[in-house]
Amino acid sequence: MVQPSGASSWNGWGDPARRPGLSEHVREFLDQRFHGLLVPPPPPVALEEVRLAPSALSAEVRQRIAAIATVSEEREARVAHARGKSYRDLVRIRSGDASGAPDSVVSVTRPSQVEELLALCTEERLAVVPFGGGTSVVGGVEPLRGEFAALIALDLTGMDRLVNLDIVSHTATLQPGLRGPQAEALLAARGYTLGHFPQSYELATIGGYAATRSAGQASTGYGRSDELVVGLTVATPSGTLQLGRAPRSAAGPDLRQLMLGSEGAFGVITDVTMAVRPTPPHKRYEGWFFPSFSSGLEALRRLEQHKLAPEVSRLSDEDETVGNLALSGHGGGLSGAYLKARRVKAMAIFGWEGEQELVSARRKLGLKIVRAAGGVSVGTSAGQAWESGRFAAPYLRDDLLDAGVLVETLETAASWAKLPQVRDGVREAVTSALGASSGVLIGCHVSHLYPAGASLYFTVLAPAALRDPLGQWDAAKRAATDAIVASGATITHHHAVGADHMPWLAAEIGELGVDVLRAVKQRLDPAGILNPGKLLP
Amino acid sequence: MVQPSGASSWNGWGDPARRPGLSEHVREFLDQRFHGLLVPPPPPVALEEVRLAPSALSAEVRQRIAAIATVSEEREARVAHARGKSYRDLVRIRSGDASGAPDSVVSVTRPSQVEELLALCTEERLAVVPFGGGTSVVGGVEPLRGEFAALIALDLTGMDRLVNLDIVSHTATLQPGLRGPQAEALLAARGYTLGHFPQSYELATIGGYAATRSAGQASTGYGRSDELVVGLTVATPSGTLQLGRAPRSAAGPDLRQLMLGSEGAFGVITDVTMAVRPTPPHKRYEGWFFPSFSSGLEALRRLEQHKLAPEVSRLSDEDETVGNLALSGHGGGLSGAYLKARRVKAMAIFGWEGEQELVSARRKLGLKIVRAAGGVSVGTSAGQAWESGRFAAPYLRDDLLDAGVLVETLETAASWAKLPQVRDGVREAVTSALGASSGVLIGCHVSHLYPAGASLYFTVLAPAALRDPLGQWDAAKRAATDAIVASGATITHHHAVGADHMPWLAAEIGELGVDVLRAVKQRLDPAGILNPGKLLP
Repeated sequence: MVQPSGASSWNGWGDPARRPGLSEHVREFLDQRFHGLLVPPPPPVALEEVRLAPSALSAEVRQRIAAIATVSEEREARVAHARGKSYRDLVRIRSGDASGAPDSVVSVTRPSQVEELLALCTEERLAVVPFGGGTSVVGGVEPLRGEFAALIALDLTGMDRLVNLDIVSHTATLQPGLRGPQAEALLAARGYTLGHFPQSYELATIGGYAATRSAGQASTGYGRSDELVVGLTVATPSGTLQLGRAPRSAAGPDLRQLMLGSEGAFGVITDVTMAVRPTPPHKRYEGWFFPSFSSGLEALRRLEQHKLAPEVSRLSDEDETVGNLALSGHGGGLSGAYLKARRVKAMAIFGWEGEQELVSARRKLGLKIVRAAGGVSVGTSAGQAWESGRFAAPYLRDDLLDAGVLVETLETAASWAKLPQVRDGVREAVTSALGASSGVLIGCHVSHLYPAGASLYFTVLAPAALRDPLGQWDAAKRAATDAIVASGATITHHHAVGADHMPWLAAEIGELGVDVLRAVKQRLDPAGILNPGKLLP
Repeated sequence: MVQPSGASSWNGWGDPARRPGLSEHVREFLDQRFHGLLVPPPPPVALEEVRLAPSALSAEVRQRIAAIATVSEEREARVAHARGKSYRDLVRIRSGDASGAPDSVVSVTRPSQVEELLALCTEERLAVVPFGGGTSVVGGVEPLRGEFAALIALDLTGMDRLVNLDIVSHTATLQPGLRGPQAEALLAARGYTLGHFPQSYELATIGGYAATRSAGQASTGYGRSDELVVGLTVATPSGTLQLGRAPRSAAGPDLRQLMLGSEGAFGVITDVTMAVRPTPPHKRYEGWFFPSFSSGLEALRRLEQHKLAPEVSRLSDEDETVGNLALSGHGGGLSGAYLKARRVKAMAIFGWEGEQELVSARRKLGLKIVRAAGGVSVGTSAGQAWESGRFAAPYLRDDLLDAGVLVETLETAASWAKLPQVRDGVREAVTSALGASSGVLIGCHVSHLYPAGASLYFTVLAPAALRDPLGQWDAAKRAATDAIVASGATITHHHAVGADHMPWLAAEIGELGVDVLRAVKQRLDPAGILNPGKLLP
């Protein structure tokens, strides 16, 4: 299988050699759950069989671009930049559908190249899709050319430098193309960490974090990516914005927060200055079980509102706990007599990080709350197992797709008071859309805590519809998002809007709010070349 | 003296009965410091002598407004809404200059009235200055009518309800006209607090907090006002924005952060949902001294970067310490033999708040850092004295003005690495502008900590120039702001832009950034009626 830029399989996640394969007990679990309804789809097509239109770029324009940056029209590059990593994306690309693939993949290493390219593309009316890790699961890198005759993917992974590390202020200025592990390695060499570990960590980039407001698995403790940003530079067709002269300011509206989450539709982020922390000298990851999701939720709320939440604070509901134990092979051990005897059903992972003394003091106080809510420790091995497997799920997904499983995630956030009804609403909507008789499994976990509320993250497993897998999932996603909107929650906590959530943006911020964003877009990108068809309806 | 809306003196701060008067030791200190250069100005004019043009509103328009809300054209109301509370404002109003005073003061109690008024004022082309506590020190409520024939002050203090308290999510929805103490009283009755205590607390309002991104004395622990906001409603001439469906979202740019700090130029905030906390069961305020400002600064930085900073973390430099001790009457006690023997010169206030156990644990770890930096405790009485006098400075200012003292403050924020040079730059600029020979006293303190940086707050005392006090201060302010910009700091950390900082906004966010804000303004307030001449050049 081809590995463009040495980063990710064009039709799956990361390095295919790391796919775990489905073990016997996983197969058994799936069979029991889905009543033998799983039918493996045709195997993914080979790269050569992917349907790909010839590049629409004229030789002249290609030459003008090549005078600025590196242009590739290789099949593998174009296909790898045609899709993100959602279920929709994988189903399509595995079947050989790369329709709309970028006409060229243009790679840059310097901010000045980005500025020159934006000027050229505005002049030539070429659509531009800024492309970092390409891990969007909401159609954020979908090559929608709309009225434009041609479209380029602007690959930023060549902008991969640590520009500056300020060890007094604990900030790092990072280029947008740095992938998670690259950024961490550069910082670790100096004794620092971003502490930002989204599930897409191995592939996702700094620019993508900022453009989509990503949250990481330790964001409860370290802050979301958007909370870590103290400054950023954004190249737009109308000029370059340099924002952030202090951690906080009262100099009018915070334009940083207008650029964060702008998903490449306002400009291309060319550097980001983020808060970093010294590598934590002490880490303690541990597993806990609660009698129920709701008792665990209460514990998490109290921990956060008492400023005692661990850096990593995750709680799976009863169904996700069952699924996780089965899929991870721990079904026999943890889900057996031990848990039953203690009448606990919802698993939590708590990860404490920092200086030993402070961690000890916080943990001691925090565990009083945990125990008062009925929490039962299952020790550090469960925590370590979670930590070591924390980036593995996307690999497993590829194997599940091979086996005929629909597997996708969706997420939201709401106030603590609303969370239970939001969860119920989404579960009912998805179950009803997919059909309860299919054995659909909807796991849910809470993983990002704020004093006023938290996120809910759903994982959906069901037998994939052979004939129309996209229609099947689209119906479920529509129903889920409608339920989210109806219950007063946000349409996305950390996956961004992209093309997939766009129809609900007006429900989120009102038609007037959308108009405000349009006015900003019009000022910064009057020709509308930047990531068309995303964010703004 | 007249007290419009029972809230504040029209020509000074708050309730004039609470002015402390200048004690003998303060007079001695001023005399020594300013070499007998102080010349008391003419006493403030009486309300009846204030120069006030007749209202420019036609009877017909006045009637249309009165059909929606309460209209007052009383002298005391118009004069009280003519100025904020900066040195410029006080000097002018004390001399009887209320030029440009609003033609009418229009008071509302309901959001629907605001919506109707904005429609009417757009139709009639009337400028509107949203007015809460009127405590702006940057010309934020200056009645600049520009091309408009008439201008109204939209008084929001009648919108003073606690709309909702969510005790699960720890959020309160508050109307914009609630003053600090009113909001705290409503919350305290239910066991909660905002924990937001700007120096303007006694007069300032919730809407003003949000419109200007205010920071409070305990914001290091509780968060700035803008960080506490989880949702808000903004009435604009183009419709109403309702923002905030979750504490955090990735649904595109954060429009809340575009409305926070919009200073009444984009719309009128009609409610704000903010994070609240249970009233802290334990408080410990204490005084510490450091050998120097720079050793204290190092301690504060380490405390914050280790997540151990007290809720209130303030550090005065050597000059401010001397001034504070003298003005508070503690000159004899603390500044004497005790401090000299210990070779400490820079005073800090640390205020720990929360549950006893957590406070104890954090304090114990934090004080290791404090002591390692040479910190010496002067006990809780110094802390309590600071706490009980924390809102008194604006009263003292009125007395100092009577005595012929120029007294004004200014503030900024920057990264920790830049703070020392920012402070030096501002001190030099102000000293040079005011003339070193005048004995000018420039005190500086740090009072808002972030992992990446902190604020610097300067208090300037000098003999007022009798002939041109405004020109004297304007020159110093210009020099200070130029120095701030040159050193890479923000033009304001928590005083907003208003009219006074407007010339430097482009230096802060670039011409393109200003253009983006203009595009937003144009979309929301196409007639430009909202707070003209503020924020946007």
